[in-house]
Amino acid sequence: MICVPTLFLDVKRCKKNIGKMASKAKRHGLEFRPHAKTHQSLEVSRWFKEFGVTKLTVSSLKMATYFAEEWDDITVAFPTNILEIKTINQLSKKIKLNLCIENIEVLEFLSEQLEHPIGIFLKIDIGYHRTGIDVDDIELINSLLLKMNKQKFLEFKGFLGHAGHSYKCRSREAVESVHQKSKEQILLLKERYKKQYPNLIISLGDTPGCSVSEDFYGVDEIRPGNFVFYDLTQNIIGSNSLDEIAVAMACPIVAKHKTRNEIIIYGGGIHFSKDRIEDPEDGIIFGRVVEKKNKTWGPYIPKMFVKSLSQEHGIVSVPEAIFDGYKIGDLIWVLPVHSCMAADLMKKFYTTDEEVISMM
Amino acid sequence: MICVPTLFLDVKRCKKNIGKMASKAKRHGLEFRPHAKTHQSLEVSRWFKEFGVTKLTVSSLKMATYFAEEWDDITVAFPTNILEIKTINQLSKKIKLNLCIENIEVLEFLSEQLEHPIGIFLKIDIGYHRTGIDVDDIELINSLLLKMNKQKFLEFKGFLGHAGHSYKCRSREAVESVHQKSKEQILLLKERYKKQYPNLIISLGDTPGCSVSEDFYGVDEIRPGNFVFYDLTQNIIGSNSLDEIAVAMACPIVAKHKTRNEIIIYGGGIHFSKDRIEDPEDGIIFGRVVEKKNKTWGPYIPKMFVKSLSQEHGIVSVPEAIFDGYKIGDLIWVLPVHSCMAADLMKKFYTTDEEVISMM
Repeated sequence: MICVPTLFLDVKRCKKNIGKMASKAKRHGLEFRPHAKTHQSLEVSRWFKEFGVTKLTVSSLKMATYFAEEWDDITVAFPTNILEIKTINQLSKKIKLNLCIENIEVLEFLSEQLEHPIGIFLKIDIGYHRTGIDVDDIELINSLLLKMNKQKFLEFKGFLGHAGHSYKCRSREAVESVHQKSKEQILLLKERYKKQYPNLIISLGDTPGCSVSEDFYGVDEIRPGNFVFYDLTQNIIGSNSLDEIAVAMACPIVAKHKTRNEIIIYGGGIHFSKDRIEDPEDGIIFGRVVEKKNKTWGPYIPKMFVKSLSQEHGIVSVPEAIFDGYKIGDLIWVLPVHSCMAADLMKKFYTTDEEVISMM
Repeated sequence: MICVPTLFLDVKRCKKNIGKMASKAKRHGLEFRPHAKTHQSLEVSRWFKEFGVTKLTVSSLKMATYFAEEWDDITVAFPTNILEIKTINQLSKKIKLNLCIENIEVLEFLSEQLEHPIGIFLKIDIGYHRTGIDVDDIELINSLLLKMNKQKFLEFKGFLGHAGHSYKCRSREAVESVHQKSKEQILLLKERYKKQYPNLIISLGDTPGCSVSEDFYGVDEIRPGNFVFYDLTQNIIGSNSLDEIAVAMACPIVAKHKTRNEIIIYGGGIHFSKDRIEDPEDGIIFGRVVEKKNKTWGPYIPKMFVKSLSQEHGIVSVPEAIFDGYKIGDLIWVLPVHSCMAADLMKKFYTTDEEVISMM
């Protein structure tokens, strides 16, 4: 019996999401190296194997260590943390490990400290401006390549970009435009270096671009992650339909305030995270309520949303007409704003058959 | 050696914060029932015992179960979740357990299902409008009291309020004003019911009010929690000085972008949470950088702050003049915006002597 906030996973939707992205990759001749930071689960990662996936992306060496139990080709899509050299050497002894580099200091450090071969992606800034080498900083790229060529344990794999600015889009057209511009930028590098490095890989990653676009000309590999579950953020971006959202949090109703049409749920920032989206009509929201239906749930109920979160409380705004239908002790089901963060907090999933799926 | 994001606790500052609040409670003749949701640690809770504290507040039955190993008088300051009746019966067999009630449904449910005595606080809305009975809903209060009087296992303890709207204040004067108004409201109930219930307890809770005010006339018990560590949010509210903030996150520098004076740290939303504050000059920030000094840290460096967080990345804005002083592989120390959420995510503390303090 579910008594506390519990993150449910609709396995059927999840596998459908995986299958759809795997087909798209296949259709476009792309290597599919899904990001595992959203699910952080060996069990979920096995479902990818059913679709022929053999390579993973992760966002930390801790996560790489966890998945290295069952995966032997992993890219850490995060600037290399030189303080973790011990873990890097342990992992690269065991699996094919790829790291991201964007400066000379880290490359020099690795040159001195590595004990086993690793693959290197040069992280390129394709417009998001979080990390990466400016796409026109050819001097830096050349000097990094030169250094790599001299080192036995460093193998240049290619250029890796993440168009994270697609998260600011609010239409499929806007996502397509970000995807095209980002792709054009990184393809300039392919053009420039393909003679010298005929096997170089162009790796792109964001869920919005990978979900929306059908143009991957010139791209070799995709690394989306969030699509495995999707969420309300991806929905307002235009990445997915509501019936593709594969996780929902079941939360007990603990109080009701009829004068302001609010329900208090046991379910707060330590369950959902404080990630928010701004809806043009409903304002800032932290989740939306759906109706449980058999082994899944329906679309969200209009005007019923989590309007505020404290550490353990959520305040749910409820349309007056349906307010009396909710009783204290009922569970309500909430689609999260950001499934990666909610999963990270909850540390396990329940399937809609109430089986437990463990995480890292 | 610290290689990944690590939450440090300055034990000296923390004990000083505890001692200061304990003295204030003593000075005003108040029962001190600190909230444990910020530290969630038996070890930290033992430091309170050194100051004569014998009672705790928590925000979930899970937390109550954890602390019941060493504490025998616990209030759960959260609307009672009837789905957890089994845990309620287990706990109330073992310790003095107080629950919060704000409606008839839950009281009726408890009346039928309780197996051991528990204390009941009526949760009163004193202006925050998150949970609680309207202070002038005498009809509801009377019917709850009437029901309780008839039940063997329900003992009315008093009225409990939480002036959480003090978190919107940005000056000590504003906090004082919220504190006074909230106190006045709940004291009306003391006035009304003290003849009938001469031992009734008026319990107030928020860290801003308890930190700022020196007027607790009529109040019987205080339940602040965050003051044990404080944080940047409390600092902008006016609750604490910077040198009272007792936690800081050490984060490795993994990349630098000189053209925009930004440093990328390993330290993101899964470490800090996405809680934010809006600074009038610096805009939205997610943390501020301090300098490590011996076994503690100094005040924050002006204009150096975490401007954005992803799952594992933080982007730190750095003043140009000091940018070159930071090297890849250095640790930087960040004061969190919300220490409760950061602690909940990190699951353990390191003292500045690098000893580990475990949490729930």
